[in-house]
Amino acid sequence: MKTLIVYAHPEPRSLNGSLKDLAVSTLRQAGHEVRVSDLYAMRWKAAADAGDYGPSASSPLRVAADSGRAFDTGNLTPDVRAEQEKLLWADLVIFQFPLWWYTMPAILKGWFDRVFTYHFAYGVGEHNDVKYGERFGEGTLAGRRALLSVTAGGPESHYAERGINGPIDDLLFPIQHGILYYPGLEVLPPFVLYGADRLTREDFPDIAKAWQERLLTLDSTEPIAFRRQNAGDYEIPSLHLKEGLEPAGRSGFRLHVRP
Amino acid sequence: MKTLIVYAHPEPRSLNGSLKDLAVSTLRQAGHEVRVSDLYAMRWKAAADAGDYGPSASSPLRVAADSGRAFDTGNLTPDVRAEQEKLLWADLVIFQFPLWWYTMPAILKGWFDRVFTYHFAYGVGEHNDVKYGERFGEGTLAGRRALLSVTAGGPESHYAERGINGPIDDLLFPIQHGILYYPGLEVLPPFVLYGADRLTREDFPDIAKAWQERLLTLDSTEPIAFRRQNAGDYEIPSLHLKEGLEPAGRSGFRLHVRP
Repeated sequence: MKTLIVYAHPEPRSLNGSLKDLAVSTLRQAGHEVRVSDLYAMRWKAAADAGDYGPSASSPLRVAADSGRAFDTGNLTPDVRAEQEKLLWADLVIFQFPLWWYTMPAILKGWFDRVFTYHFAYGVGEHNDVKYGERFGEGTLAGRRALLSVTAGGPESHYAERGINGPIDDLLFPIQHGILYYPGLEVLPPFVLYGADRLTREDFPDIAKAWQERLLTLDSTEPIAFRRQNAGDYEIPSLHLKEGLEPAGRSGFRLHVRP
Repeated sequence: MKTLIVYAHPEPRSLNGSLKDLAVSTLRQAGHEVRVSDLYAMRWKAAADAGDYGPSASSPLRVAADSGRAFDTGNLTPDVRAEQEKLLWADLVIFQFPLWWYTMPAILKGWFDRVFTYHFAYGVGEHNDVKYGERFGEGTLAGRRALLSVTAGGPESHYAERGINGPIDDLLFPIQHGILYYPGLEVLPPFVLYGADRLTREDFPDIAKAWQERLLTLDSTEPIAFRRQNAGDYEIPSLHLKEGLEPAGRSGFRLHVRP
């Protein structure tokens, strides 16, 4: 298995750094190939702007159209092209990051903003009566898998069904469904560590064991059953879920997971 | 009214740029004071790192604790201190940005990651049997209001109750509740423009009229009725919503809005 780890934390000796290191060693020892995009070490540029599109940048700038033209003509900057190439190389992409303000750090958001260009991650495929582009289950990255490994400062109860932060699956939905599933990645259930601010060195052996178990059983792990956009569950072009498909009482983001 | 506009788009002649300009002129003509943080023009640094905390950065770096100590001792960088000062000056904060991958652009996330430090935006207040810190309705920014003005590429139906992207209120919940309401800002209902990728110059007069109407009626606009953490609706310290408080059939993020 070829695994790309995209890692976003400023401190190598952090819990996130340790989980990244453990993933690298565990997967390599199991015979897998591993590449790492360490965004802080790479000094990854977070803000998408005209400089990303070289001679394909129009004036005024049009982010979607210009990024697509830059992708088509090979005018994207080398840092972005390298990440797209890594994604096409990988069978599995692991994202290792802390939840900062309930979502990913800016440097990682900037990786998606700049690497997931038009014609690469969106604006792919035809639109017709039965198909609204290739997305949500189809697309450039179809056939590959993704996994979030995240740390959360607060205790698990705050992220539970009735918890004040909102349920963790709903907090991660815009990433797992909106960003990863959109260009076709199948998303495995996340590995979440709660109460990260209160963990000590003594807690790490148990954490390491749980993370290694997840890493060594990924082949037999079923992805989250997001509904495929073009497989009959949605009206086109409104992309409303067809009436009657949801289990009783389910609403919001959960409509888009098959029962 | 003192209004801070935090604006995140790389192209001044974009729809987002026009909406920001219109907000400035409309509010000033109505007699309000306006300041603008134009993050691209400011070349805002997006990635939080040890450099933000000066001599308060420890080794290994601890983002929460170190940012709090840097805040307490005045060691935060001048760019961050300037934004905190603007927030304390403002009665209202407007955030103008495009939805990129269903949330804010990286440069704006980096504004929150760096400006919303420990002891300023979180880690405020005592923890005891009836209070779990000052947050979700209390905190440093209590008594002020916030408003998201966002553009979305896709059509409105995709963001509707049964739409494939998920309902817009749920997509914005981690920002409106998790980031803005957390340090005490009261959040006004968002101004959302859909189908932004297909809008033309001819559409702008109607858009401008709708935006001006919102801007000139903010005083009489009721904020979203998020539940206050320490007002009796939650068990402490689990922060589970107490049983029986939700309307029938409501789940997920919607539990945290009063009926």
